[in-house]
Amino acid sequence: MHARQSPLSADRFFAPDPAQRRVARELYDGIADLPIVSPHGHVDPRLLADENATFGTPADLLIIPDHYVFRMLHSQGVPLEVIGVPRREGPADLAEPADPADPVGHRQIWQVFADHFHLFLGTPTGIWLAHELQDVFGIPEPLTGANAQAIYDELSDKLARPEFRPRALFERFNIEILCTTDDASDPLTWHQAIRASGWAGDVRPTFRPDALVNIGAPGWRSHLDALGRACGREITSCAALVTALEERRAFFKRMGATATDHGVESAYTAPLDAAEAEAIFARALRGEATADDARRFTGHLLIEEARLSVEDGLTMQLHVGAFRNHDRSVFERFGADKGADIPVATEFTRNLRPLLERFGDDARLTLILFTLDESSYARELAPLAGHYPAVRLGPPWWFNDSLNGMARYFDQVMETAGLWNTAGFNDDTRAFVSIPARHDVWRRASANWLAGLVVRGLVDEPGAVEMAHEMADGLARRAYRLGKA
Amino acid sequence: MHARQSPLSADRFFAPDPAQRRVARELYDGIADLPIVSPHGHVDPRLLADENATFGTPADLLIIPDHYVFRMLHSQGVPLEVIGVPRREGPADLAEPADPADPVGHRQIWQVFADHFHLFLGTPTGIWLAHELQDVFGIPEPLTGANAQAIYDELSDKLARPEFRPRALFERFNIEILCTTDDASDPLTWHQAIRASGWAGDVRPTFRPDALVNIGAPGWRSHLDALGRACGREITSCAALVTALEERRAFFKRMGATATDHGVESAYTAPLDAAEAEAIFARALRGEATADDARRFTGHLLIEEARLSVEDGLTMQLHVGAFRNHDRSVFERFGADKGADIPVATEFTRNLRPLLERFGDDARLTLILFTLDESSYARELAPLAGHYPAVRLGPPWWFNDSLNGMARYFDQVMETAGLWNTAGFNDDTRAFVSIPARHDVWRRASANWLAGLVVRGLVDEPGAVEMAHEMADGLARRAYRLGKA
Amino acid sequence: MHARQSPLSADRFFAPDPAQRRVARELYDGIADLPIVSPHGHVDPRLLADENATFGTPADLLIIPDHYVFRMLHSQGVPLEVIGVPRREGPADLAEPADPADPVGHRQIWQVFADHFHLFLGTPTGIWLAHELQDVFGIPEPLTGANAQAIYDELSDKLARPEFRPRALFERFNIEILCTTDDASDPLTWHQAIRASGWAGDVRPTFRPDALVNIGAPGWRSHLDALGRACGREITSCAALVTALEERRAFFKRMGATATDHGVESAYTAPLDAAEAEAIFARALRGEATADDARRFTGHLLIEEARLSVEDGLTMQLHVGAFRNHDRSVFERFGADKGADIPVATEFTRNLRPLLERFGDDARLTLILFTLDESSYARELAPLAGHYPAVRLGPPWWFNDSLNGMARYFDQVMETAGLWNTAGFNDDTRAFVSIPARHDVWRRASANWLAGLVVRGLVDEPGAVEMAHEMADGLARRAYRLGKA
Repeated sequence: MHARQSPLSADRFFAPDPAQRRVARELYDGIADLPIVSPHGHVDPRLLADENATFGTPADLLIIPDHYVFRMLHSQGVPLEVIGVPRREGPADLAEPADPADPVGHRQIWQVFADHFHLFLGTPTGIWLAHELQDVFGIPEPLTGANAQAIYDELSDKLARPEFRPRALFERFNIEILCTTDDASDPLTWHQAIRASGWAGDVRPTFRPDALVNIGAPGWRSHLDALGRACGREITSCAALVTALEERRAFFKRMGATATDHGVESAYTAPLDAAEAEAIFARALRGEATADDARRFTGHLLIEEARLSVEDGLTMQLHVGAFRNHDRSVFERFGADKGADIPVATEFTRNLRPLLERFGDDARLTLILFTLDESSYARELAPLAGHYPAVRLGPPWWFNDSLNGMARYFDQVMETAGLWNTAGFNDDTRAFVSIPARHDVWRRASANWLAGLVVRGLVDEPGAVEMAHEMADGLARRAYRLGKA
Repeated sequence: MHARQSPLSADRFFAPDPAQRRVARELYDGIADLPIVSPHGHVDPRLLADENATFGTPADLLIIPDHYVFRMLHSQGVPLEVIGVPRREGPADLAEPADPADPVGHRQIWQVFADHFHLFLGTPTGIWLAHELQDVFGIPEPLTGANAQAIYDELSDKLARPEFRPRALFERFNIEILCTTDDASDPLTWHQAIRASGWAGDVRPTFRPDALVNIGAPGWRSHLDALGRACGREITSCAALVTALEERRAFFKRMGATATDHGVESAYTAPLDAAEAEAIFARALRGEATADDARRFTGHLLIEEARLSVEDGLTMQLHVGAFRNHDRSVFERFGADKGADIPVATEFTRNLRPLLERFGDDARLTLILFTLDESSYARELAPLAGHYPAVRLGPPWWFNDSLNGMARYFDQVMETAGLWNTAGFNDDTRAFVSIPARHDVWRRASANWLAGLVVRGLVDEPGAVEMAHEMADGLARRAYRLGKA
Repeated sequence: MHARQSPLSADRFFAPDPAQRRVARELYDGIADLPIVSPHGHVDPRLLADENATFGTPADLLIIPDHYVFRMLHSQGVPLEVIGVPRREGPADLAEPADPADPVGHRQIWQVFADHFHLFLGTPTGIWLAHELQDVFGIPEPLTGANAQAIYDELSDKLARPEFRPRALFERFNIEILCTTDDASDPLTWHQAIRASGWAGDVRPTFRPDALVNIGAPGWRSHLDALGRACGREITSCAALVTALEERRAFFKRMGATATDHGVESAYTAPLDAAEAEAIFARALRGEATADDARRFTGHLLIEEARLSVEDGLTMQLHVGAFRNHDRSVFERFGADKGADIPVATEFTRNLRPLLERFGDDARLTLILFTLDESSYARELAPLAGHYPAVRLGPPWWFNDSLNGMARYFDQVMETAGLWNTAGFNDDTRAFVSIPARHDVWRRASANWLAGLVVRGLVDEPGAVEMAHEMADGLARRAYRLGKA
């Protein structure tokens, strides 16, 4: 197979119709260079805490930590071990990359990757990788098995230079704000180090209490103990847990956080009375909580978290519908987040009602909803966002963060929700160097969608210009309360 | 935000490709001026019962009664009180509009609406409003906060003229038949008045027994009592209820009705034996019916209604999947139909089978199915319509009554169901002056879809011309048994 | 109604944009004449077992056995009896067609069909029929009620000629491999006859054990007895059943089979321990198995079949989501497969996990998944195929085997699964003469999709050329282990 990613063209991703393409290009040109506001993602803040941090080898940078990449190789029979994905017992350490001059096997990993690069043709990962190679590293020729080693050399050479260190790229990428995602008990050491360093980069934490909310997850007890240590006292009741979460939210807020994040398999919410909540918590402490206990406890705490958001003003994100660690064998050998999370159908109308009847009409709350089940877009999410003042719709998430995924989202959401009930773009990435590529895809897709409205007589061009700016900037700033530049 | 709705262009909503656009325009030109057959909607017949009725102020006309409009303002934090939506305890009265010269606060409501008009960019409501202002009222400039008061003046002036009274517009709109939706116990006073007035407008009732079928709804008992009064005897059994419904259907039919309408959250159908049906009815009379009783009773009565349709020839409409009054706070303050109904997933294959195995192969029945869950289109509805002689598919409903909603419907339904198993268009509107806009969107969307078939070699142009006429006229007439002009 | 199918144009089905159309045409030209590999379908092997077999009358060929055709006529009120669909008590016999010179009523059936031909406008059946008439039989003018008898004469004349016998068309169609679908107990008499005849056509069976796996289906016991006869011993336990299936698989494999096929309403899988499996089997033998027994037994046997596929290398196909024989009246009068199967929603993420945690990472297994519920495409199927080495996605199936169905599949599947985790095309047809038409639609749709990637800068043209070949040939060969030409 010799099929190759096309070199990046200036008009890429725009509809071929000349009239639409012309308008799309104009709209895109107006937003292409706006600063990046990244309100939700998973970049490791350690990368930015030390001014001398580097990305390691090309394999460290682009392959080993990126589940989008290795799950595709795995799907075609390449064992994760061959790709260098660390086993549970010996995790790789991002802060201590192997020697770039002679990393153990990384050239071989790179060759395997390049030999299979055609697998990414037409996929978002293929687009991001091409953008990274060409725009970030100045390597225009598409990667193939034949040029793999030469490109490895060139990448290694560049990665060793100061201008390719994380902070230098942060500035070159024109990132104005970068939000990370952090455990509720996290001391935010690296965020503190970034602040203490005097560097001007705006890196903010996001409060994610999933490990404490989900009493059914393995390791819940150890996470509870960590929370206790962070708060300086043992957590022995549900009430104490909520109080501790409230304290941690205040700490995160002082550290710059403007949002929380909640990842749940179902959007189920329902309040428990205090006695029920405490009884379930007590069972959880004894290791006796059932699956139904876990479901109900999560449904209760989501309402508590919404109440706290009304009080402290942190925007609440709800990511719904990932069945985590679907492949038991991969999980047992390699752990979580290894490309083996599979979506399930989601229901919002009935599940979210208990939360919304308490806080849905309260403009102090901003609740941003994400789903992996697009059948919810037009059926449930757009109508909810089009009615409740508190609700905004997050952009296409994960598998749907793609050109077609965005087109389907625009198509299915915007007519009912209206653009102003959406929340702009999230890159949601762990792969720092993919940030510009991801925002560029969104900006191009937005421009192309708006151009379609213009050529079909739905919006005039000045209107589309303003809408394009909202999509690239204003909507996300307001939804995440990130202020104006 | 200064983005504006584009002024209406002659080729609006057509694909930008010149070849497709040319064909779309030709097809559209052939149907644009056909009379409007409106087989299902919610216009208040009082508007047409008095030749001197007027629409009141611009706010009375376009904002206060239109949940499409005020739910969008509400979603962005504008309280319903500010928009003039009447509280439950003091409902506005369409027949007694406030003084147009100085209505209490209506200029202010209009200003708020105009200040937020950008929220409707790219939405169906935005399209309809632009069409109404430009085509119905001759106001070409797009509404903004700046020109709001001037446009209010112009609209007020026009609304006071005889040529903008409802009957005059009915005739100018070239409406051949308008069907309303009416409670089963309704004496059809206004329909009688229309007939008695000698006016030639063809306005027909539609029989909607939901309030009697749903024993779980608040107020069921009072609706049952109203039915008893309408029939001249107390309704004390399920058998008596069915007999009463049969009588009312006959009355509606004499008054011109050709259809019934049923709005249900689920498409569940299953017959009850007489003893079960009576036991549930008795519990309902005692106020002791459970949610499951209500579900089963509705499932039973849908089959009874289908049986009656086989006998009396009234087309049966089934609108499935709206979770009504989702926002408790809005419902308690403002009542039903306030933009807070949210769709749920719908299932037809298993749920409708008991009804279809009785009457699905009986050509005396026409059963028109509507859903708010588009995932049912290709999966269930098109295959059902493509097999059962009794089944036709209604057009995209409510949130899906939009340009993209129509495109998805054509895409997902037509290949399997075939055009002739669909039921043409419904405007389904409470907003009388939006009727031409809504039919125009359908006709343009139809023409554009057919043009796509022509340019891709699927249908020849003479064929497409005939199909366009079917979509604008023939399909609806036959499905609703409304005869030929 | 005089709307007609358009005569076949060289660029049919391609997007109208000139740039995309040019690329699509080039890509299509490169694959249009490739041999047909048909890895899954339902052609009767008797047609090819006798070199003198014929297709009978035009009605025998195109109408009476084709549920795609007669279900559409039925949906518009034409009784199946009028179309010549045989009643259960008197099934037609494909090998003994009526006298072509004077078949009982077949001219009349043809006339009814032609009079209703507009119903197929814009449908896949309409496309296939037009292709068959024009390309296979050289009749370019579209069928209408007016030319029906003349076309009947011309078709009858051609069907009587040697060059229109099944084997001659097999060769003219350039079919390299044709796979049929056969009951597990089938002695494969006709496949043996084809081999014995010395004819070079490559016709292979596919192992389908549904009738034995589904203990809840009517006739299960008689199918079990047939299996016993095929194996030469009574089957009295679940263990014996699995052993018998294993033997039959080996026989099918010797006869050229490379795949199995499983049609199930749900994708539920879960292993039973031996005692449970035997207890359920014993209840089934006594005629006492419940619906839940049937569900669990099928879920168990699917895992057993996957285990056997790991061992013997037969590719496993899973067709999920058809509610069979939905119309009881049609089933009672005419039997199964009469156009009255209706899809239901499907769930794969949770249901398939027990199977996948055993064999999903085992590259010896190829499991090809099919659904009738497109909401599963992006949500579940593409992520599963994009992770598990054993999983491939089958092409759009049945109602979705259409131009729009293919476009939706490409749109929703490819970005996440990647092209190489899909399985190429299946025609899945009972209608032998429709095979070229069906593959042509796929090839055109593929070329058009790839051209869209090219003009939007996602793939370069040489890459698209290779991808087009994969879609027309390579993917299916590898997924079904059918080797290279």
